[in-house]
Amino acid sequence: MEIQVMKNILGENDRVAAENQAMFAEKGIFVLNLMGSPGAGKTSLLEKTMAKLRDKVKMAVIEGDLYTSKDAERIDRYGVPVIQINTAGGCHLDAPMVQKVAQKLNLDELELLIVENVGNLVCPAEFAVGENEKAVVLSITEGADKPMKYPLIFKESAIALLNKVDLLPYCDFDMAGAKEDIDTLHPGMRVIEVSCSKGDGVDEWCEWLLSKVKK
Amino acid sequence: MEIQVMKNILGENDRVAAENQAMFAEKGIFVLNLMGSPGAGKTSLLEKTMAKLRDKVKMAVIEGDLYTSKDAERIDRYGVPVIQINTAGGCHLDAPMVQKVAQKLNLDELELLIVENVGNLVCPAEFAVGENEKAVVLSITEGADKPMKYPLIFKESAIALLNKVDLLPYCDFDMAGAKEDIDTLHPGMRVIEVSCSKGDGVDEWCEWLLSKVKK
Repeated sequence: MEIQVMKNILGENDRVAAENQAMFAEKGIFVLNLMGSPGAGKTSLLEKTMAKLRDKVKMAVIEGDLYTSKDAERIDRYGVPVIQINTAGGCHLDAPMVQKVAQKLNLDELELLIVENVGNLVCPAEFAVGENEKAVVLSITEGADKPMKYPLIFKESAIALLNKVDLLPYCDFDMAGAKEDIDTLHPGMRVIEVSCSKGDGVDEWCEWLLSKVKK
Repeated sequence: MEIQVMKNILGENDRVAAENQAMFAEKGIFVLNLMGSPGAGKTSLLEKTMAKLRDKVKMAVIEGDLYTSKDAERIDRYGVPVIQINTAGGCHLDAPMVQKVAQKLNLDELELLIVENVGNLVCPAEFAVGENEKAVVLSITEGADKPMKYPLIFKESAIALLNKVDLLPYCDFDMAGAKEDIDTLHPGMRVIEVSCSKGDGVDEWCEWLLSKVKK
Protein backbone atom coordinates (compact mmCIF):
# COMPACT_ATOMS: atom_id res chain seq x y z
CA MET A 1 0.00 0.00 0.00
CA GLU A 2 2.72 2.48 0.96
CA ILE A 3 4.73 1.39 -2.07
CA GLN A 4 1.68 2.00 -4.23
CA VAL A 5 1.33 5.53 -2.90
CA MET A 6 5.04 6.17 -3.52
CA LYS A 7 4.73 4.92 -7.11
CA ASN A 8 1.79 7.23 -7.73
CA ILE A 9 3.68 10.23 -6.40
CA LEU A 10 6.75 9.41 -8.48
CA GLY A 11 4.63 8.69 -11.57
CA GLU A 12 2.89 12.06 -11.30
CA ASN A 13 6.25 13.77 -10.73
CA ASP A 14 7.74 12.10 -13.82
CA ARG A 15 4.77 13.27 -15.90
CA VAL A 16 5.26 16.91 -14.86
CA ALA A 17 9.06 16.62 -15.20
CA ALA A 18 8.57 15.53 -18.82
CA GLU A 19 6.33 18.58 -19.39
CA ASN A 20 9.00 20.83 -17.91
CA GLN A 21 11.69 19.22 -20.02
CA ALA A 22 9.67 19.77 -23.19
CA MET A 23 9.04 23.40 -22.24
CA PHE A 24 12.73 24.09 -21.58
CA ALA A 25 13.81 22.20 -24.73
CA GLU A 26 11.46 24.30 -26.86
CA LYS A 27 13.19 27.42 -25.53
CA GLY A 28 16.66 25.92 -26.01
CA ILE A 29 17.50 26.16 -22.30
CA PHE A 30 19.98 23.76 -20.68
CA VAL A 31 18.70 22.88 -17.21
CA LEU A 32 20.97 21.55 -14.46
CA ASN A 33 19.72 20.01 -11.20
CA LEU A 34 22.47 20.75 -8.65
CA MET A 35 22.44 18.46 -5.62
CA GLY A 36 24.52 17.67 -2.52
CA SER A 37 24.59 17.49 1.28
CA PRO A 38 23.92 20.53 3.46
CA GLY A 39 27.07 22.65 3.33
CA ALA A 40 28.72 20.74 0.47
CA GLY A 41 29.23 24.06 -1.30
CA LYS A 42 26.43 24.21 -3.86
CA THR A 43 25.74 27.92 -3.40
CA SER A 44 29.46 28.77 -3.24
CA LEU A 45 29.94 26.93 -6.53
CA LEU A 46 27.05 28.90 -8.02
CA GLU A 47 28.63 32.16 -6.88
CA LYS A 48 31.90 31.25 -8.66
CA THR A 49 29.94 30.08 -11.70
CA MET A 50 28.00 33.32 -11.99
CA ALA A 51 31.13 35.43 -11.62
CA LYS A 52 32.67 33.54 -14.57
CA LEU A 53 29.67 33.03 -16.82
CA ARG A 54 27.12 35.79 -16.28
CA ASP A 55 28.55 37.85 -19.14
CA LYS A 56 28.93 34.85 -21.46
CA VAL A 57 25.58 33.12 -21.11
CA LYS A 58 22.06 34.18 -20.21
CA MET A 59 21.45 32.37 -16.97
CA ALA A 60 18.96 32.14 -14.11
CA VAL A 61 18.83 30.23 -10.84
CA ILE A 62 16.04 28.52 -8.94
CA GLU A 63 16.93 28.05 -5.26
CA GLY A 64 15.39 25.29 -3.16
CA ASP A 65 15.39 25.57 0.61
CA LEU A 66 13.17 24.45 3.47
CA TYR A 67 12.30 27.85 4.89
CA THR A 68 14.88 30.59 4.30
CA SER A 69 15.95 32.73 1.34
CA LYS A 70 19.58 32.92 2.51
CA ASP A 71 20.94 31.28 -0.67
CA ALA A 72 18.78 33.32 -3.03
CA GLU A 73 20.07 36.50 -1.38
CA ARG A 74 23.63 35.35 -2.11
CA ILE A 75 22.76 34.72 -5.77
CA ASP A 76 20.88 37.99 -6.10
CA ARG A 77 24.08 39.97 -5.44
CA TYR A 78 25.45 38.76 -8.79
CA GLY A 79 22.61 40.34 -10.75
CA VAL A 80 21.42 36.97 -12.05
CA PRO A 81 17.64 36.35 -11.97
CA VAL A 82 16.85 34.09 -9.03
CA ILE A 83 13.63 32.57 -7.70
CA GLN A 84 13.31 31.02 -4.26
CA ILE A 85 11.24 27.90 -3.63
CA ASN A 86 10.56 27.18 0.04
CA THR A 87 9.50 23.60 0.55
CA ALA A 88 8.17 24.29 4.08
CA GLY A 89 10.10 21.36 5.49
CA GLY A 90 10.03 19.19 2.37
CA CYS A 91 13.31 17.38 1.76
CA HIS A 92 13.57 17.82 -2.03
CA LEU A 93 12.32 19.88 -4.95
CA ASP A 94 9.85 18.25 -7.32
CA ALA A 95 8.73 18.92 -10.86
CA PRO A 96 5.42 20.70 -10.00
CA MET A 97 7.30 23.18 -7.76
CA VAL A 98 9.70 24.01 -10.59
CA GLN A 99 6.89 24.22 -13.15
CA LYS A 100 5.04 26.73 -10.99
CA VAL A 101 7.96 29.13 -10.53
CA ALA A 102 9.41 28.73 -14.06
CA GLN A 103 6.49 30.83 -15.30
CA LYS A 104 7.99 33.80 -13.47
CA LEU A 105 11.20 33.62 -15.53
CA ASN A 106 11.56 35.13 -18.97
CA LEU A 107 12.29 31.82 -20.67
CA ASP A 108 12.74 33.43 -24.10
CA GLU A 109 15.79 35.23 -22.70
CA LEU A 110 17.45 32.19 -21.09
CA GLU A 111 20.17 29.75 -22.15
CA LEU A 112 21.08 28.18 -18.82
CA LEU A 113 18.91 27.45 -15.78
CA ILE A 114 20.50 26.00 -12.64
CA VAL A 115 18.18 24.52 -10.03
CA GLU A 116 19.89 24.28 -6.64
CA ASN A 117 18.13 21.52 -4.76
CA VAL A 118 17.55 21.19 -1.00
CA GLY A 119 20.71 20.15 0.87
CA ASN A 120 20.24 16.38 1.03
CA LEU A 121 22.25 13.50 -0.43
CA VAL A 122 19.27 11.13 -0.56
CA CYS A 123 15.83 12.33 -1.62
CA PRO A 124 16.55 14.88 -4.39
CA ALA A 125 18.08 12.14 -6.56
CA GLU A 126 14.68 10.42 -6.71
CA PHE A 127 12.71 13.35 -8.10
CA ALA A 128 13.40 14.75 -11.57
CA VAL A 129 12.45 18.41 -11.94
CA GLY A 130 12.71 18.56 -15.73
CA GLU A 131 16.49 18.87 -15.94
CA ASN A 132 18.80 17.85 -18.78
CA GLU A 133 21.51 16.74 -16.37
CA LYS A 134 22.06 16.30 -12.67
CA ALA A 135 25.30 17.28 -10.87
CA VAL A 136 26.37 16.25 -7.37
CA VAL A 137 28.66 18.28 -5.10
CA LEU A 138 30.45 16.26 -2.40
CA SER A 139 32.79 18.08 -0.05
CA ILE A 140 35.89 16.14 0.93
CA THR A 141 35.18 16.94 4.61
CA GLU A 142 32.19 14.56 4.34
CA GLY A 143 34.50 11.56 3.91
CA ALA A 144 35.52 9.23 1.09
CA ASP A 145 32.96 6.58 2.07
CA LYS A 146 30.04 8.71 0.90
CA PRO A 147 29.72 7.61 -2.78
CA MET A 148 29.14 3.97 -1.75
CA LYS A 149 26.82 5.04 1.08
CA TYR A 150 24.71 7.30 -1.16
CA PRO A 151 24.99 5.55 -4.55
CA LEU A 152 21.83 6.75 -6.31
CA ILE A 153 22.87 10.40 -6.48
CA PHE A 154 26.17 9.38 -8.12
CA LYS A 155 24.44 7.01 -10.54
CA GLU A 156 21.96 9.72 -11.55
CA SER A 157 24.44 12.58 -11.95
CA ALA A 158 26.44 13.35 -15.09
CA ILE A 159 29.23 14.99 -13.13
CA ALA A 160 30.61 14.94 -9.58
CA LEU A 161 32.37 17.90 -8.01
CA LEU A 162 34.67 17.02 -5.12
CA ASN A 163 34.71 20.34 -3.30
CA LYS A 164 36.85 21.87 -0.51
CA VAL A 165 40.09 20.26 -1.76
CA ASP A 166 41.90 23.15 -0.03
CA LEU A 167 41.13 21.26 3.22
CA LEU A 168 42.77 18.01 2.00
CA PRO A 169 45.96 18.62 4.07
CA TYR A 170 43.86 18.72 7.27
CA CYS A 171 41.50 15.82 6.50
CA ASP A 172 41.92 12.10 6.16
CA PHE A 173 40.28 11.82 2.72
CA ASP A 174 41.17 8.99 0.33
CA MET A 175 40.85 10.78 -3.03
CA ALA A 176 41.91 7.78 -5.14
CA GLY A 177 39.49 5.51 -3.29
CA ALA A 178 36.60 7.97 -3.65
CA LYS A 179 37.22 8.32 -7.39
CA GLU A 180 37.45 4.56 -7.78
CA ASP A 181 34.13 4.10 -5.97
CA ILE A 182 32.47 6.77 -8.12
CA ASP A 183 33.76 5.06 -11.24
CA THR A 184 32.41 1.72 -9.99
CA LEU A 185 28.97 3.24 -9.40
CA HIS A 186 28.91 5.23 -12.64
CA PRO A 187 31.64 4.14 -15.06
CA GLY A 188 33.22 7.00 -16.96
CA MET A 189 31.50 9.68 -14.88
CA ARG A 190 33.20 13.06 -15.04
CA VAL A 191 34.80 14.02 -11.71
CA ILE A 192 36.36 17.43 -10.99
CA GLU A 193 38.33 18.41 -7.90
CA VAL A 194 37.14 21.85 -6.80
CA SER A 195 37.91 24.47 -4.21
CA CYS A 196 35.28 27.18 -4.25
CA SER A 197 37.31 29.24 -1.77
CA LYS A 198 40.61 29.01 -3.72
CA GLY A 199 39.20 28.68 -7.25
CA ASP A 200 40.62 25.26 -8.21
CA GLY A 201 38.55 23.43 -10.80
CA VAL A 202 36.09 26.26 -11.36
CA ASP A 203 37.34 26.88 -14.94
CA GLU A 204 36.99 23.19 -15.83
CA TRP A 205 33.48 23.11 -14.36
CA CYS A 206 32.43 26.26 -16.24
CA GLU A 207 33.81 24.83 -19.50
CA TRP A 208 31.73 21.69 -18.96
CA LEU A 209 28.62 23.81 -18.33
CA LEU A 210 29.27 26.02 -21.37
CA SER A 211 29.69 22.92 -23.58
CA LYS A 212 26.13 21.94 -22.61
CA VAL A 213 24.54 25.29 -23.45
CA LYS A 214 23.20 25.44 -27.00
CA LYS A 215 24.11 28.60 -28.87
CA MET B 1 -4.89 13.66 -0.31
CA GLU B 2 -1.09 13.49 -0.14
CA ILE B 3 -1.20 15.28 3.21
CA GLN B 4 -3.70 12.69 4.45
CA VAL B 5 -1.34 9.85 3.45
CA MET B 6 1.56 11.58 5.21
CA LYS B 7 -0.51 12.01 8.37
CA ASN B 8 -1.40 8.33 8.35
CA ILE B 9 2.23 7.30 7.96
CA LEU B 10 3.33 9.64 10.77
CA GLY B 11 0.41 8.55 12.98
CA GLU B 12 1.31 4.89 12.56
CA ASN B 13 4.97 5.69 13.20
CA ASP B 14 4.12 7.58 16.39
CA ARG B 15 2.06 4.61 17.61
CA VAL B 16 4.98 2.19 17.15
CA ALA B 17 7.45 4.73 18.57
CA ALA B 18 5.33 4.88 21.74
CA GLU B 19 5.41 1.07 21.94
CA ASN B 20 9.21 1.11 21.57
CA GLN B 21 9.53 3.81 24.21
CA ALA B 22 7.44 1.79 26.67
CA MET B 23 9.51 -1.33 25.95
CA PHE B 24 12.82 0.48 26.51
CA ALA B 25 11.50 2.27 29.63
CA GLU B 26 10.44 -1.04 31.16
CA LYS B 27 14.01 -2.27 30.74
CA GLY B 28 15.48 0.99 32.07
CA ILE B 29 17.34 1.72 28.84
CA PHE B 30 18.16 5.29 27.78
CA VAL B 31 17.74 5.56 24.02
CA LEU B 32 19.39 8.30 21.94
CA ASN B 33 18.49 9.08 18.32
CA LEU B 34 21.72 10.48 16.80
CA MET B 35 21.20 12.56 13.66
CA GLY B 36 23.16 14.80 11.27
CA SER B 37 24.24 15.39 7.67
CA PRO B 38 26.27 12.84 5.72
CA GLY B 39 29.83 13.11 7.02
CA ALA B 40 29.01 15.31 10.01
CA GLY B 41 30.90 12.84 12.20
CA LYS B 42 28.17 10.72 13.82
CA THR B 43 30.09 7.45 13.57
CA SER B 44 33.37 9.09 14.61
CA LEU B 45 31.60 10.48 17.68
CA LEU B 46 30.27 6.99 18.45
CA GLU B 47 33.78 5.55 18.19
CA LYS B 48 35.08 8.09 20.73
CA THR B 49 32.01 7.47 22.92
CA MET B 50 32.50 3.70 22.96
CA ALA B 51 36.20 4.01 23.76
CA LYS B 52 35.26 6.14 26.81
CA LEU B 53 32.08 4.44 28.00
CA ARG B 54 32.09 0.78 27.02
CA ASP B 55 33.57 -0.26 30.39
CA LYS B 56 31.30 2.08 32.36
CA VAL B 57 27.89 1.39 30.86
CA LYS B 58 26.24 -1.52 29.06
CA MET B 59 25.65 -0.13 25.61
CA ALA B 60 24.56 -1.18 22.13
CA VAL B 61 24.25 0.59 18.80
CA ILE B 62 21.73 0.41 15.97
CA GLU B 63 23.20 1.71 12.71
CA GLY B 64 21.01 3.14 9.95
CA ASP B 65 22.32 3.33 6.41
CA LEU B 66 20.86 3.16 2.92
CA TYR B 67 22.75 0.11 1.68
CA THR B 68 26.15 -0.49 3.30
CA SER B 69 27.34 -1.83 6.65
CA LYS B 70 30.45 0.40 6.66
CA ASP B 71 29.49 2.16 9.89
CA ALA B 72 28.45 -1.03 11.70
CA GLU B 73 31.85 -2.52 10.87
CA ARG B 74 33.52 0.49 12.50
CA ILE B 75 31.39 0.05 15.65
CA ASP B 76 31.95 -3.71 15.74
CA ARG B 77 35.70 -3.21 16.28
CA TYR B 78 34.95 -1.77 19.73
CA GLY B 79 33.27 -4.96 20.91
CA VAL B 80 29.94 -3.19 21.41
CA PRO B 81 26.82 -5.04 20.17
CA VAL B 82 25.72 -3.44 16.89
CA ILE B 83 22.85 -4.12 14.51
CA GLN B 84 22.68 -2.71 10.99
CA ILE B 85 19.45 -1.50 9.44
CA ASN B 86 19.62 -0.96 5.68
CA THR B 87 16.77 1.23 4.49
CA ALA B 88 17.31 0.25 0.83
CA GLY B 89 17.33 3.88 -0.25
CA GLY B 90 15.00 5.20 2.46
CA CYS B 91 16.08 8.57 3.83
CA HIS B 92 15.43 7.98 7.55
CA LEU B 93 14.89 5.29 10.16
CA ASP B 94 11.40 4.77 11.50
CA ALA B 95 9.91 3.18 14.60
CA PRO B 96 8.88 -0.15 12.98
CA MET B 97 12.45 -0.68 11.69
CA VAL B 98 13.86 -0.14 15.18
CA GLN B 99 11.17 -2.31 16.80
CA LYS B 100 12.02 -5.20 14.47
CA VAL B 101 15.77 -5.21 15.14
CA ALA B 102 15.51 -4.40 18.87
CA GLN B 103 14.31 -7.95 19.41
CA LYS B 104 17.79 -9.15 18.43
CA LEU B 105 19.39 -7.24 21.32
CA ASN B 106 19.55 -8.59 24.85
CA LEU B 107 17.53 -5.74 26.34
CA ASP B 108 17.84 -7.07 29.90
CA GLU B 109 21.58 -6.46 29.67
CA LEU B 110 21.40 -2.89 28.32
CA GLU B 111 21.56 0.58 29.88
CA LEU B 112 22.24 2.73 26.82
CA LEU B 113 21.11 2.28 23.21
CA ILE B 114 22.32 4.72 20.56
CA VAL B 115 20.51 4.74 17.22
CA GLU B 116 22.62 6.35 14.50
CA ASN B 117 20.21 7.60 11.89
CA VAL B 118 20.70 7.91 8.12
CA GLY B 119 22.93 10.87 7.17
CA ASN B 120 20.32 13.54 6.50
CA LEU B 121 19.56 16.87 8.17
CA VAL B 122 15.89 16.88 7.14
CA CYS B 123 13.80 13.70 7.25
CA PRO B 124 15.07 11.86 10.37
CA ALA B 125 13.85 14.72 12.59
CA GLU B 126 10.26 13.94 11.52
CA PHE B 127 10.21 10.29 12.58
CA ALA B 128 10.54 9.26 16.23
CA VAL B 129 12.00 5.78 16.67
CA GLY B 130 11.16 5.41 20.38
CA GLU B 131 14.03 7.47 21.73
CA ASN B 132 14.22 9.38 25.00
CA GLU B 133 16.25 12.17 23.42
CA LYS B 134 17.49 13.27 20.01
CA ALA B 135 20.98 14.68 19.38
CA VAL B 136 22.18 16.53 16.27
CA VAL B 137 25.77 16.59 15.02
CA LEU B 138 26.63 19.56 12.78
CA SER B 139 30.17 19.83 11.43
CA ILE B 140 31.52 23.36 11.23
CA THR B 141 32.60 22.70 7.63
CA GLU B 142 28.88 22.69 6.73
CA GLY B 143 28.59 26.39 7.51
CA ALA B 144 27.06 28.55 10.23
CA ASP B 145 23.85 29.15 8.26
CA LYS B 146 22.67 25.56 8.74
CA PRO B 147 20.67 25.82 11.99
CA MET B 148 18.31 28.40 10.48
CA LYS B 149 18.13 26.45 7.20
CA TYR B 150 17.31 23.15 8.94
CA PRO B 151 15.43 24.33 12.05
CA LEU B 152 13.33 21.26 12.89
CA ILE B 153 16.28 19.03 13.77
CA PHE B 154 17.58 21.68 16.18
CA LYS B 155 14.12 22.21 17.71
CA GLU B 156 13.68 18.47 18.22
CA SER B 157 17.14 17.70 19.64
CA ALA B 158 18.12 18.00 23.30
CA ILE B 159 21.76 18.65 22.46
CA ALA B 160 23.79 19.93 19.49
CA LEU B 161 27.38 18.87 18.85
CA LEU B 162 29.38 21.29 16.70
CA ASN B 163 32.00 18.92 15.34
CA LYS B 164 35.32 19.34 13.50
CA VAL B 165 36.32 22.44 15.48
CA ASP B 166 39.94 21.48 14.68
CA LEU B 167 39.19 22.83 11.17
CA LEU B 168 38.03 26.24 12.47
CA PRO B 169 41.34 27.96 11.52
CA TYR B 170 40.81 26.94 7.87
CA CYS B 171 37.09 27.66 7.57
CA ASP B 172 35.00 30.78 7.63
CA PHE B 173 32.61 29.64 10.38
CA ASP B 174 30.80 32.14 12.62
CA MET B 175 30.66 30.17 15.90
CA ALA B 176 28.97 32.95 17.90
CA GLY B 177 26.36 33.41 15.18
CA ALA B 178 25.65 29.69 14.92
CA LYS B 179 25.20 29.39 18.69
CA GLU B 180 22.93 32.43 18.73
CA ASP B 181 20.77 30.94 15.97
CA ILE B 182 20.56 27.61 17.80
CA ASP B 183 19.51 29.40 20.97
CA THR B 184 16.86 31.31 19.03
CA LEU B 185 15.46 28.08 17.59
CA HIS B 186 15.67 26.14 20.85
CA PRO B 187 16.26 28.41 23.86
CA GLY B 188 18.63 26.94 26.44
CA MET B 189 19.62 24.01 24.22
CA ARG B 190 22.90 22.39 25.26
CA VAL B 191 25.65 22.98 22.67
CA ILE B 192 29.10 21.37 22.81
CA GLU B 193 32.08 22.15 20.57
CA VAL B 194 33.64 18.85 19.55
CA SER B 195 36.60 17.56 17.59
CA CYS B 196 36.35 13.82 17.15
CA SER B 197 39.83 13.73 15.61
CA LYS B 198 41.51 15.72 18.42
CA GLY B 199 39.23 14.73 21.29
CA ASP B 200 37.86 18.17 22.29
CA GLY B 201 34.46 18.07 23.93
CA VAL B 202 34.23 14.27 24.05
CA ASP B 203 34.44 14.17 27.86
CA GLU B 204 31.68 16.74 28.21
CA TRP B 205 29.49 14.79 25.75
CA CYS B 206 30.10 11.49 27.55
CA GLU B 207 29.25 13.11 30.90
CA TRP B 208 25.96 14.34 29.44
CA LEU B 209 25.20 10.83 28.13
CA LEU B 210 26.11 9.18 31.45
CA SER B 211 23.87 11.61 33.34
CA LYS B 212 20.96 10.30 31.27
CA VAL B 213 21.60 6.61 31.93
CA LYS B 214 19.66 5.28 34.90
CA LYS B 215 21.73 3.19 37.26
